[in-house]
Amino acid sequence: MEKVNIAEKLSKFATHWDPKVVGELNGQMVKLVKFLGPFTWHSHANEDEMFYVVKGEFDMEFRDRTVHLGTGEFIVVPRGVEHRPNAQAEVHVMLFEPAATLNTGNVVNELTKATLQRI
Amino acid sequence: MEKVNIAEKLSKFATHWDPKVVGELNGQMVKLVKFLGPFTWHSHANEDEMFYVVKGEFDMEFRDRTVHLGTGEFIVVPRGVEHRPNAQAEVHVMLFEPAATLNTGNVVNELTKATLQRI
Repeated sequence: MEKVNIAEKLSKFATHWDPKVVGELNGQMVKLVKFLGPFTWHSHANEDEMFYVVKGEFDMEFRDRTVHLGTGEFIVVPRGVEHRPNAQAEVHVMLFEPAATLNTGNVVNELTKATLQRI
Repeated sequence: MEKVNIAEKLSKFATHWDPKVVGELNGQMVKLVKFLGPFTWHSHANEDEMFYVVKGEFDMEFRDRTVHLGTGEFIVVPRGVEHRPNAQAEVHVMLFEPAATLNTGNVVNELTKATLQRI
């Protein structure tokens, strides 16, 4: 039961598209990640994902539209929905999703992180 | 799949100890709540709870110690652990917890909210 300081955790890594686990509860994980540029189009068969913008802004692209998110905003992407985060500049994001969630969902490529570091 | 702006949602209510539902995913709810003063000592038999400070500061009191949390910090209180949030001044908090979580846990009193409003 230690508290977690988000800014302090974010200062510990500089990599992009490389989620770090900072908390866990009820089978869900809290992750921090830095986005830059476009990610991979993908979906998650069994997991809803929440993206909360800690600092910065990015576009959550769907096949039929785009939602722009800024600091202090979040979006929930339901399971099965194809999406692609796209950040023009670096953005810091907190994720909430089931522990089993793979970052690239149904796609496996050079961006896939099979195991995540806890920081 | 609409985005949620935390500040905009917080502007919609002024009550204390009155959680509002602003999102749901994987059977978990995202809630916003304003704390002021001491809450009720309680625990949750089956739910872990996450408290993320959006703005302000408060003490999470446990029977054997107190953890002080400020803006941008969070704590996970595991199921079964007695706790009491206590805020010297108003603080805005985002909660993540299972949909079934009762705010006062194992205690039912005048602070209990049996049903929660979605905003």
